[in-house]
Amino acid sequence: MRLNEGLIFMSDTRTNAGVDDISQVRKTTNWCTPGERVITILSAGNLATTQSVVSLLEERSKAPQDREPTLMRLPTMFRVAELVGETLREIVQKHKMNHGQSQDQFGATLLVGGQIAGSPPRLFMVYPEGNFVEASDDNPFFQTGEIKYGRPILVRAYRPDLSFAEAVKLLTVSFDSTIKSNIGVDLPVDLTIHRKDGFVISHSLRFERNDPYFRDVSEKWGDSLRSALSALPDFSF
Amino acid sequence: MRLNEGLIFMSDTRTNAGVDDISQVRKTTNWCTPGERVITILSAGNLATTQSVVSLLEERSKAPQDREPTLMRLPTMFRVAELVGETLREIVQKHKMNHGQSQDQFGATLLVGGQIAGSPPRLFMVYPEGNFVEASDDNPFFQTGEIKYGRPILVRAYRPDLSFAEAVKLLTVSFDSTIKSNIGVDLPVDLTIHRKDGFVISHSLRFERNDPYFRDVSEKWGDSLRSALSALPDFSF
Repeated sequence: MRLNEGLIFMSDTRTNAGVDDISQVRKTTNWCTPGERVITILSAGNLATTQSVVSLLEERSKAPQDREPTLMRLPTMFRVAELVGETLREIVQKHKMNHGQSQDQFGATLLVGGQIAGSPPRLFMVYPEGNFVEASDDNPFFQTGEIKYGRPILVRAYRPDLSFAEAVKLLTVSFDSTIKSNIGVDLPVDLTIHRKDGFVISHSLRFERNDPYFRDVSEKWGDSLRSALSALPDFSF
Repeated sequence: MRLNEGLIFMSDTRTNAGVDDISQVRKTTNWCTPGERVITILSAGNLATTQSVVSLLEERSKAPQDREPTLMRLPTMFRVAELVGETLREIVQKHKMNHGQSQDQFGATLLVGGQIAGSPPRLFMVYPEGNFVEASDDNPFFQTGEIKYGRPILVRAYRPDLSFAEAVKLLTVSFDSTIKSNIGVDLPVDLTIHRKDGFVISHSLRFERNDPYFRDVSEKWGDSLRSALSALPDFSF
């Protein structure tokens, strides 16, 4: 999510290959050269694909000067999104070729956000085909994966001038709605914040399964919804 | 939705074959023999399939005594659900055979609810394979079609002792959340109510695109959500 204060990211940690094969995995990866650039990638979709992409990006970022341009040396976030897109597309294509399956099965979508000195923070959604779209004033946040349950509150309550403290609250409510509705999404959730022009990971923390803040918001939100509903005018026939 | 007071149904009227081919169609069909039985079917999925099913059921219901058992003569809602399921399965299979396509493309899901004298109201969800599940205390409402956006509020606020006036409000909020998020769902929406042991369509009405109640609830709900969110504790880092 793009805010006036900077970028904020939240991802859950639930991965599954059917309800009888559920694991926990971190879907957020952060890179940072303090004072110069900060990059975060969130992933959704085929776990083998997203882990391969991140591994390739990690290795490339450790490569010597004479190798391919890396995440940490590209001049703009646009170029970073391009590299992520190319890497994603290659992995998806490789699995697709190897297995003669439809692309969907190996597909993944990545959210890429960050800031490189000299430019404002930028946020992209990268598709399995390697192309991408950028967040804008009209379209200031992206969701991937199980997006629908948590979307209405984002549509209603997002404002670019939300503080990070308010935005965490909004994301908590949105994720909580999804967690309540779908066993495929669950705590812990990972939160990452890039304060604008900070060029560091300003905050990186995890809400564990029994996190008191998350639970408090969830309970109070349930109560508030029921009160709000009951305060609305009943239909009269 | 099953309530202590009876059954309540809501369906939208948006159908599309792509965003450039959008039409309006009623997805609710009612049958009634006053004092003896009342049946409502809501449909979601392939429009050709659902219209064929309803037409077949309509024709059968007009057939002479010596023909197949019809919707209006079957002794229980369970048998009604069976007939609806068989009819649906036949249509889906026929289109599938004729076109060598996957079943998904011609699939549809039907919600069938009603009451026949001597039994309580019953509510079923009928799948394209012709099988069906029944609503129960643990699972007191069904959704089909674009279900996710509107689900969290149902999960949070449903109670079996809701009055019809309250339930209309809840369904209005749920549909409004979906309409706000997805262009594939839109007003008008059709509302049908079977008061328990009434054996008539107690209420059948349409909320048009500018319905003042629907708009009022939508606006107030948006305000309430924003107030409720702002009343929740901000996260403190």
